[in-house]
Amino acid sequence: MKVVVVVGGVGGARFLLGVKAALGLPAVGEGDSPHEITALVNTGDDVWLHGLRICPDLDTCMYTLGGGVDDERGWGHADETWTVKGELEAYGADPTWFALGDKDIATHLIRSRMLRAGYPLSAVTEALCDRWRPGVRLLPMSDDRVETHVVVDDPDQPDQRKALHFQEWWVRYHAKLPAHSIVPVGAEEAEPAPGVTAAIAEADAVLFAPSNPVVSVGSVLSVPGVREALRGTSAGVVGVSPIIGGRPVRGMADACLAAIGVETSAEAVGRHYGSRQTSEDGLLDGWLVHQGESVDVPGVAVRAVPLVMSDVAATTRMVRAALDLAGVDGD
Amino acid sequence: MKVVVVVGGVGGARFLLGVKAALGLPAVGEGDSPHEITALVNTGDDVWLHGLRICPDLDTCMYTLGGGVDDERGWGHADETWTVKGELEAYGADPTWFALGDKDIATHLIRSRMLRAGYPLSAVTEALCDRWRPGVRLLPMSDDRVETHVVVDDPDQPDQRKALHFQEWWVRYHAKLPAHSIVPVGAEEAEPAPGVTAAIAEADAVLFAPSNPVVSVGSVLSVPGVREALRGTSAGVVGVSPIIGGRPVRGMADACLAAIGVETSAEAVGRHYGSRQTSEDGLLDGWLVHQGESVDVPGVAVRAVPLVMSDVAATTRMVRAALDLAGVDGD
Repeated sequence: MKVVVVVGGVGGARFLLGVKAALGLPAVGEGDSPHEITALVNTGDDVWLHGLRICPDLDTCMYTLGGGVDDERGWGHADETWTVKGELEAYGADPTWFALGDKDIATHLIRSRMLRAGYPLSAVTEALCDRWRPGVRLLPMSDDRVETHVVVDDPDQPDQRKALHFQEWWVRYHAKLPAHSIVPVGAEEAEPAPGVTAAIAEADAVLFAPSNPVVSVGSVLSVPGVREALRGTSAGVVGVSPIIGGRPVRGMADACLAAIGVETSAEAVGRHYGSRQTSEDGLLDGWLVHQGESVDVPGVAVRAVPLVMSDVAATTRMVRAALDLAGVDGD
Repeated sequence: MKVVVVVGGVGGARFLLGVKAALGLPAVGEGDSPHEITALVNTGDDVWLHGLRICPDLDTCMYTLGGGVDDERGWGHADETWTVKGELEAYGADPTWFALGDKDIATHLIRSRMLRAGYPLSAVTEALCDRWRPGVRLLPMSDDRVETHVVVDDPDQPDQRKALHFQEWWVRYHAKLPAHSIVPVGAEEAEPAPGVTAAIAEADAVLFAPSNPVVSVGSVLSVPGVREALRGTSAGVVGVSPIIGGRPVRGMADACLAAIGVETSAEAVGRHYGSRQTSEDGLLDGWLVHQGESVDVPGVAVRAVPLVMSDVAATTRMVRAALDLAGVDGD
């Protein structure tokens, strides 16, 4: 079976653990399986900092699936140290608000060097995965530079607006500055990375992880060609709601949804993705919401199951329900 | 008084501690003084590794004079950690033979970022020194890329020759591969960094630290214009021998001297630098050798004093003798 999963960072990575387990693979690391999982990973959060190219979602997926992630935080390395960051601060080097761990920096050094040597991000990711062996093919959504920017009132000059890189808005300001709009800068000229549209076309099932609908899944969808591929695939396309009881399970998705005028509810997000069958640009055949929620998305099969990814077993049950809803056998 | 000192790494940095002390400055850090010390620092050892621009001699001087150096090793940071290096090795990223400490990496990140943004190395060095406050003006010998390469028999194909970057020869092979020649690649097209020739012209005394005559002092001398400035200055030019009893005090200068056909002796090195008075391209007015050595360098005033830099006090006495030999009052 070929399964494609659209993912962001922490939530997406944890969802992928369940996808692997549901298909009989070890959640962490590689294993023998006739099944093939391809993750289309958001790169809109990527950023150059201190001369290093940082790809938070790719790295979170890679570390999580490869067994190197810090389980508490959900991102970055287990047993991380922060010596370089402390020294950069001693120099007064901006920015200081981004958590750049020492182990993490090795990844960024290798990636930055390869990018500067002309390798596309997809090839760099493959090279890094040679070490981590995530057991999932991790594809960046695009090899082109697409960066999510957030338009806010300038904190220094409130009568003016300012576009912040997503990371600055998210990490430095904790998404507390109301967003007027959220723009995937560069998306219009971007192409899907090699393999992305083919994976969608050849898939038996496509799942949207319960990642941020705007800045994670939404960024992947912003790359021209991805939406068309999703509408054209013969696979069932099923989304998993990141909203439970009107609140994001993790992160600050509500602040992002507000910026694009979508209510923070499972129903509103399901309608935002829309129906492949009855809507001109909709994407979903199925929409998985949390047990007990009553949700109606016209033209989309809605099913309610427990959606809390409390451990791999619970996540695996969610994934099985999603695969089932997509019309394939998740056992 | 204005004193110019031509230096390499560890030995040069320790010599500078004595120059500062001899001129009434604190050996480490800044202090009030009417005197001005300019170090012309070898950059021939500089190298790009893992996408980082590493300037070993500039950093050794900066850390030593700024109070951050590891006193045992003589280079790198006190209380250094090696997390990034371990991770790079886990990725199998070449090369693995260079000791890249975590604290050190912060310096390299800032430098690399500034260089890529178009700042010349001299401006970058000044910015880094804003933190370290070495109390000495550290000038790279050139803002242009000059890199010392060493021609050896190819260790993999002994019937062929191969040019290694100096660092690979020195750090990886411990200078054990006999050098056919040592070449400052790029020197011909290089210019002295801003301030270098003016500092020499305006100096009251110019000292050659007891640094490697080939790959440290020799690299500085290889930059067109430096030799001419030294021959033209009204200051006394005095060298301090790095050879005591026919052996280098530190490092593997003998392997470098062999490559250029100079005997490893205080006399031979003094003659290699040559006399400003009686030789067409000589550079020295005075040559300081170790107590008890009998050395003759035609046209150069030779004096013998204890040359072991066992502590700052001993180094200060050496420097005073050198300044005295240069015709200025080192007290």
